[in-house]
Amino acid sequence: MVVTFKEENTVAFKHLFLKGYKDMHDDTYAIYSQEDVHTHINFTIKRYLELQNISVGNHAYESNGDGQTGMSLCQHFYKQGTIFPGNETFEIDPQIETECFYIDPSTLYSNDTPAEAWTNMTLDFYRLVSVEIMFKLKAINLQTIRHHELPDCYDFIITITFDNKAHSGRIKITLDNDVGIQECRDWHVSGSIQKNTHYMMIFDAAVILVCLSSITLCIRSVVKGILLQREYVNFVQHRFTRTVSSADRMEFVNGWYIMIIISDVLTVIGSILKMEIQAKSLTSYDVCSILLGTSTLLVWLGVIRYLGFFKKYNLLILTLRAALPNVMRFCCCAAMIYLGYCFCGWIVLGPYHVKFRSLNMVSECLFSLMNGDDMFTTFSNMQQKSYLVWLFSRIYLYSFISLFIYMVLSLFIALITDTYDTIKNYQIGGFPESELHTFVSECKDLPTSGRYREENKASCFSMPCCRNQ
Amino acid sequence: MVVTFKEENTVAFKHLFLKGYKDMHDDTYAIYSQEDVHTHINFTIKRYLELQNISVGNHAYESNGDGQTGMSLCQHFYKQGTIFPGNETFEIDPQIETECFYIDPSTLYSNDTPAEAWTNMTLDFYRLVSVEIMFKLKAINLQTIRHHELPDCYDFIITITFDNKAHSGRIKITLDNDVGIQECRDWHVSGSIQKNTHYMMIFDAAVILVCLSSITLCIRSVVKGILLQREYVNFVQHRFTRTVSSADRMEFVNGWYIMIIISDVLTVIGSILKMEIQAKSLTSYDVCSILLGTSTLLVWLGVIRYLGFFKKYNLLILTLRAALPNVMRFCCCAAMIYLGYCFCGWIVLGPYHVKFRSLNMVSECLFSLMNGDDMFTTFSNMQQKSYLVWLFSRIYLYSFISLFIYMVLSLFIALITDTYDTIKNYQIGGFPESELHTFVSECKDLPTSGRYREENKASCFSMPCCRNQ
Amino acid sequence: MVVTFKEENTVAFKHLFLKGYKDMHDDTYAIYSQEDVHTHINFTIKRYLELQNISVGNHAYESNGDGQTGMSLCQHFYKQGTIFPGNETFEIDPQIETECFYIDPSTLYSNDTPAEAWTNMTLDFYRLVSVEIMFKLKAINLQTIRHHELPDCYDFIITITFDNKAHSGRIKITLDNDVGIQECRDWHVSGSIQKNTHYMMIFDAAVILVCLSSITLCIRSVVKGILLQREYVNFVQHRFTRTVSSADRMEFVNGWYIMIIISDVLTVIGSILKMEIQAKSLTSYDVCSILLGTSTLLVWLGVIRYLGFFKKYNLLILTLRAALPNVMRFCCCAAMIYLGYCFCGWIVLGPYHVKFRSLNMVSECLFSLMNGDDMFTTFSNMQQKSYLVWLFSRIYLYSFISLFIYMVLSLFIALITDTYDTIKNYQIGGFPESELHTFVSECKDLPTSGRYREENKASCFSMPCCRNQ
Amino acid sequence: MVVTFKEENTVAFKHLFLKGYKDMHDDTYAIYSQEDVHTHINFTIKRYLELQNISVGNHAYESNGDGQTGMSLCQHFYKQGTIFPGNETFEIDPQIETECFYIDPSTLYSNDTPAEAWTNMTLDFYRLVSVEIMFKLKAINLQTIRHHELPDCYDFIITITFDNKAHSGRIKITLDNDVGIQECRDWHVSGSIQKNTHYMMIFDAAVILVCLSSITLCIRSVVKGILLQREYVNFVQHRFTRTVSSADRMEFVNGWYIMIIISDVLTVIGSILKMEIQAKSLTSYDVCSILLGTSTLLVWLGVIRYLGFFKKYNLLILTLRAALPNVMRFCCCAAMIYLGYCFCGWIVLGPYHVKFRSLNMVSECLFSLMNGDDMFTTFSNMQQKSYLVWLFSRIYLYSFISLFIYMVLSLFIALITDTYDTIKNYQIGGFPESELHTFVSECKDLPTSGRYREENKASCFSMPCCRNQ
Repeated sequence: MVVTFKEENTVAFKHLFLKGYKDMHDDTYAIYSQEDVHTHINFTIKRYLELQNISVGNHAYESNGDGQTGMSLCQHFYKQGTIFPGNETFEIDPQIETECFYIDPSTLYSNDTPAEAWTNMTLDFYRLVSVEIMFKLKAINLQTIRHHELPDCYDFIITITFDNKAHSGRIKITLDNDVGIQECRDWHVSGSIQKNTHYMMIFDAAVILVCLSSITLCIRSVVKGILLQREYVNFVQHRFTRTVSSADRMEFVNGWYIMIIISDVLTVIGSILKMEIQAKSLTSYDVCSILLGTSTLLVWLGVIRYLGFFKKYNLLILTLRAALPNVMRFCCCAAMIYLGYCFCGWIVLGPYHVKFRSLNMVSECLFSLMNGDDMFTTFSNMQQKSYLVWLFSRIYLYSFISLFIYMVLSLFIALITDTYDTIKNYQIGGFPESELHTFVSECKDLPTSGRYREENKASCFSMPCCRNQ
Repeated sequence: MVVTFKEENTVAFKHLFLKGYKDMHDDTYAIYSQEDVHTHINFTIKRYLELQNISVGNHAYESNGDGQTGMSLCQHFYKQGTIFPGNETFEIDPQIETECFYIDPSTLYSNDTPAEAWTNMTLDFYRLVSVEIMFKLKAINLQTIRHHELPDCYDFIITITFDNKAHSGRIKITLDNDVGIQECRDWHVSGSIQKNTHYMMIFDAAVILVCLSSITLCIRSVVKGILLQREYVNFVQHRFTRTVSSADRMEFVNGWYIMIIISDVLTVIGSILKMEIQAKSLTSYDVCSILLGTSTLLVWLGVIRYLGFFKKYNLLILTLRAALPNVMRFCCCAAMIYLGYCFCGWIVLGPYHVKFRSLNMVSECLFSLMNGDDMFTTFSNMQQKSYLVWLFSRIYLYSFISLFIYMVLSLFIALITDTYDTIKNYQIGGFPESELHTFVSECKDLPTSGRYREENKASCFSMPCCRNQ
Repeated sequence: MVVTFKEENTVAFKHLFLKGYKDMHDDTYAIYSQEDVHTHINFTIKRYLELQNISVGNHAYESNGDGQTGMSLCQHFYKQGTIFPGNETFEIDPQIETECFYIDPSTLYSNDTPAEAWTNMTLDFYRLVSVEIMFKLKAINLQTIRHHELPDCYDFIITITFDNKAHSGRIKITLDNDVGIQECRDWHVSGSIQKNTHYMMIFDAAVILVCLSSITLCIRSVVKGILLQREYVNFVQHRFTRTVSSADRMEFVNGWYIMIIISDVLTVIGSILKMEIQAKSLTSYDVCSILLGTSTLLVWLGVIRYLGFFKKYNLLILTLRAALPNVMRFCCCAAMIYLGYCFCGWIVLGPYHVKFRSLNMVSECLFSLMNGDDMFTTFSNMQQKSYLVWLFSRIYLYSFISLFIYMVLSLFIALITDTYDTIKNYQIGGFPESELHTFVSECKDLPTSGRYREENKASCFSMPCCRNQ
Repeated sequence: MVVTFKEENTVAFKHLFLKGYKDMHDDTYAIYSQEDVHTHINFTIKRYLELQNISVGNHAYESNGDGQTGMSLCQHFYKQGTIFPGNETFEIDPQIETECFYIDPSTLYSNDTPAEAWTNMTLDFYRLVSVEIMFKLKAINLQTIRHHELPDCYDFIITITFDNKAHSGRIKITLDNDVGIQECRDWHVSGSIQKNTHYMMIFDAAVILVCLSSITLCIRSVVKGILLQREYVNFVQHRFTRTVSSADRMEFVNGWYIMIIISDVLTVIGSILKMEIQAKSLTSYDVCSILLGTSTLLVWLGVIRYLGFFKKYNLLILTLRAALPNVMRFCCCAAMIYLGYCFCGWIVLGPYHVKFRSLNMVSECLFSLMNGDDMFTTFSNMQQKSYLVWLFSRIYLYSFISLFIYMVLSLFIALITDTYDTIKNYQIGGFPESELHTFVSECKDLPTSGRYREENKASCFSMPCCRNQ
């Protein structure tokens, strides 16, 4: 809800303070003439001064003790400079100076006075780098009151930037809206409304406790496993005088436990952060959500473990696990070709195609093409300035798509089909036994026999018999 | 046609009553200043009063007995409240009060009088929750007259809502159009026009009769099957003293019959609803269409049964049926990972990506990505506010797509290919015989021999010989 | 070029004659108030009268003998009718009357005179069905002159329709532009320009001749084949007293020859039509292009025959041919489910989703979904009026896509993989020999031995030895 | 950056000089009436004359010695011509004449004077082919100064074309912006700013040197390989009197070396071009980027070679290489059908579907369809003028997509799966030995034994033993 409220306010500010703003998907709000700059600045100032009479939301100027903090209007420009593009001569000091001017919201606005009357600011467009209008607005999110929660107070720091860095004749206008949330200082609500955050806190604390106990148990199991592994390694070393293979060593460490530990750690940290956020002492929502999100993903993945106890489900999980190394290996090879295409596309097609502007974009574009997306648009958006580049782009795209869809994806299927057959034959004919399993299977004692306590030197090393998993 | 007429009217109303409305695909019709609210309300009232001279359709006010019912203009606002966002203080009573005002369509409209003259309504934007304008219009759908059907009369209940619930400075305007259809009270048409609905009714009744007889026959078959199954179970219990496997038990119940019964029941209920709708006594078109639609789907599925009588077609149907359990099992495993990704994406990316706002949307988006749709747009629509979240989104999307397209889809193919081979080998070498089939094949008597009537205790339990399917 | 010229003119006419027209992709050009209807008609008439001073193209009124044919302005309305939607009463005569009015282009237009001055036409919106403005313009396509071809003269019949059939308050405006092309009557061009159509004609004639000879040769081969088949059938009947299998019979008829014959026939008819079109005596470009297009497709398919002479290429063609029957069979089964979904979607989702309006659209939409296109948009465009329908649409879409992409497409792959293996094994181990091949292989004589002329009753029926294919 | 600066300027020029220009994705900026032509030309001239007071960028007129070069305003028209479309008669001289007029930027512009006052140009729309406005502007890209690089001076040659070639009543307006970059003549920057291009040059030179040495080494290896091959061929010819198979011959030439040579050559040429471009003596950025891009692609492909040294990675590379011939062969067959569909679609659907206008577009469209992209839009964009063509398009699209997605793509998978199995069996059971390998394996000497120097006629031809690869 916080996100939605902020976004709606941003849209409202854009419509209020930017002249002629229209909801657009692309980034084309810009002005092109000197007069427009003046009228746009003028419009913003005017709207700011009249805000109370215009806005349909409950926005107000910030008041700090004695009066209200106003709007700051700053222009950044090169310290000095005379530029004659006609003669191809210029003299410039690249140091950037800033000139600011403050407008008090209590000033009365009259339509006749031009913007310059407030600013005394002359814009020298040859030297101008940017104009920044900054002001703070306060608002209260009353929506929550209908869910019987206490409304929060919002601080909006609005920055309107007229960006002339490029000196290309086009001044892009952007409006940034930074939001700060805090509890309101003084409030009075009729009826029974309470902040129910402390119920949430108790729930979070319970989650943390459960996770901590889960961590402890898992760590205990993993530690036991490692101890057992060491004992086994020593035993084999002494008795059969040979080392234990790393695959056998890994069998002692249960990967699922490690996943649970990671998931729990993420949940604990995430929950602590969440409590801090609810207590309004932190605002790093991003880190918190990434931690909690990842832990949720791991928890769901963990459910697969329990499905694996059924033999038929196991078949499929085993196949995926067995195919993974081959798939990874194959991905390495494919990645080489993929990277080659990425760099090549970036260098050659970058200036002619929007999707090839940055290396990251190229990668996303090629990845999408590979999976059959947005092909025709990619083909047709190519600028047809140079015939050579156009031809290159065709060869590039046809070859990339053909190679990856027809060869690479087919090989993936061949890999998985092959692994599936192998695993299925194993399930019928028995898996190839590792040394460890042979060793364990020699032990005929039941875990309850208790024999392992007495004789540690029997040919049957008895610990495996009581492995709890 | 009813749907089209309603939609066209809705579009017409939007253009008539909303100031500056433009056909847009997204939901961006909103106003941002106090003055706009007044002018928009004014505009709507004006258009309503002038309707008869403006509208090109045959819309009219509703007349109830003595006069015409007018337009109601209501504002909802918090009972009391003083809000000073500047000081972060507020005092509010969350109870919502409603103030209404009625406008008679017979009022003459003059351009000079402001909207307030009719309303006496002052909008206190700090407390305002919403303004609702509601009125009823009547129309006659004359189109049908050219198909020699009788025109219907429509009641349109139009609700224009100025929604300021969020107090974000943005008032969204929506126009809802609820439609009621009824036969016109009094009509006179030159030429031979008749409502041909009773022909339709007869047809519907015939359909219902056929379906009912189909149900009876199918239920009879199913019941016979169950009786036979019981007898067989008893026989085996007494003679061989062992229980019959559930797979063998299921053989007696013909799944196709059950499908036909479900399909018929749906058709009957759907047809009855349809007749009610045609008789204008019901308007729940949704339930009716879902029932009839589902039954149509089942009828078409039923055709596959007859294709299954050819051996070569059978191969393919058998494969699909045999692969189903494995596919379902695999889907369970995949669903775990899928759900993990869903929740994770919802929590982390929700505030930054439109497609991840609700859990349902996340699921649809991931499902589309999995099948190679809209990949590049999903990548590029990510808001680039936080670098951490941006990075997370990249890892999230790349890993999800790769995992599902390259591993999961490939495993599907492996599953189906494997099942296909198995079934094909069965067709050549013979299917593994179940106990029941062995039992049945012992009986050499033809169904026409009539022997089963006499000796019930022969080694050949003869009922199966006359199984009609 | 003709197509482009026509389209550009249509766009120009729309901008010239329709008030406030903007290039839009969707079909939303409509008006909503009575006043707009009058101003739009007025605008069109004004623009028509001023055409010569406004248009930048070389458009002119048609002149027939004595004067210029003008613009006809017709309104269609119900013969009589009084409609009171408020009382739900109406009296109507569904017969449609037409009232026309003609405007002479020579009339001088003055801004002050309203449109009604010319028309004397009063629009009774309750009864109005449509207003049609129709006029003819002439133009010359001068572009061709720069390619040293003679310009053609164009007749544009422009029909502007104000469509109020629905009486929904929305009058859709469409502009139709029918084009007729003909040679100009009188022309004089400086420099050497000639219509080079007779060169084209000679080329077309040559093509027809070659195709005819190709047909004759192919028919001869096919006829020979059929004769040989008859002889073989008789021989086998008499000697071995058994019938020949239809597969063996088909071997005598070369499918490629039949394809060539069809292709040639299409080419001949198409070329004749093309000559007629060039001679301006016919304008059915559609039929001609479909004939020529299909023949081109067949010619390219024919090239595969020659690739089949190489053994390795043959493998692939044989696989496709061998898999075809199974694929067709499978498609039959899949089509049942597909049709079921089509009808079900049409009935249930039709009123709520644009893509499900007509059965044809449903089929296209589902076909696209099946192949991974436009999934997210299909999901998200669903209207959320009824929760039940919304839920149904989700189940419908998820189940359809899963079933077809994961089961059906996988089974296709299984089918093809299996056929490929079979054919590959055949190529190594030899194809299963048909009766005919066994028979033919008994003959050891070379075709040049000439023995078949003498002894027709030898055990070796010798004709096959000289089969030319 | 250069590209971005140019594009931003182009956008700025469009907004400055074109009246009513709006950012549009498609190419629909056009005018339709004679008056518009005059006002648009007037607007452009006015804006040009006022440029210094309007532009927010640092644009200036070019000054050549004595004064400033101005704007040239040219109209191209047919030499003479009288056209009466009404009578279908015309008389025309296709020779095109040009009439130009020059405007000095120093002219003062006053709003009252119409454009014709400067031009004395009367536009005869019947004969008018195009109007071209051309002028030069200069600009300095100051952006670079903040990266401590020296700003460049830009020459923009702006060409505004009013294109009436078609005489269709629609005059398309395009603005072309050709850019020339050069070092500024005279500059003075406070602070330490230097052109760091010579560091780049040194780097480029180093790259060239490394590549040249790489080329030399590779060529040496390849030449050695060829010499060895000749010797082997001679030896086998003399000793065993049989020729060596071409596959064995190819073994001596290492394909990777040849790839490295090609890559190096491209890099060297590309780097040289790059140095020239940096030295501002060349501007063919296209060729340079294609060369460097392709070499980057080859370098990344080269990395696969090193992955191939691991046995498990090798499996995958070998599969791809082994499948390639079959895939190519199959692509040949598929290409026949594909081309057939291309031509057929072009001929038949060309006039009715935007995506089928040119053969190149058809190919791109079908390729996208084949991979599951943009299907629904392709279906729905079909113009519904002729029912026959509409039906044809449905059959065409359904058959094409079904054929390629269900048959062709499945066969690809069958091909790759089969090859994968073959290669895997080879890896277990050993690859089939070529003659050469048998020959080499007879030699048991280690390369260090030095025996090959002494006895050249031993049964072991010893050169292979020291093959360095």
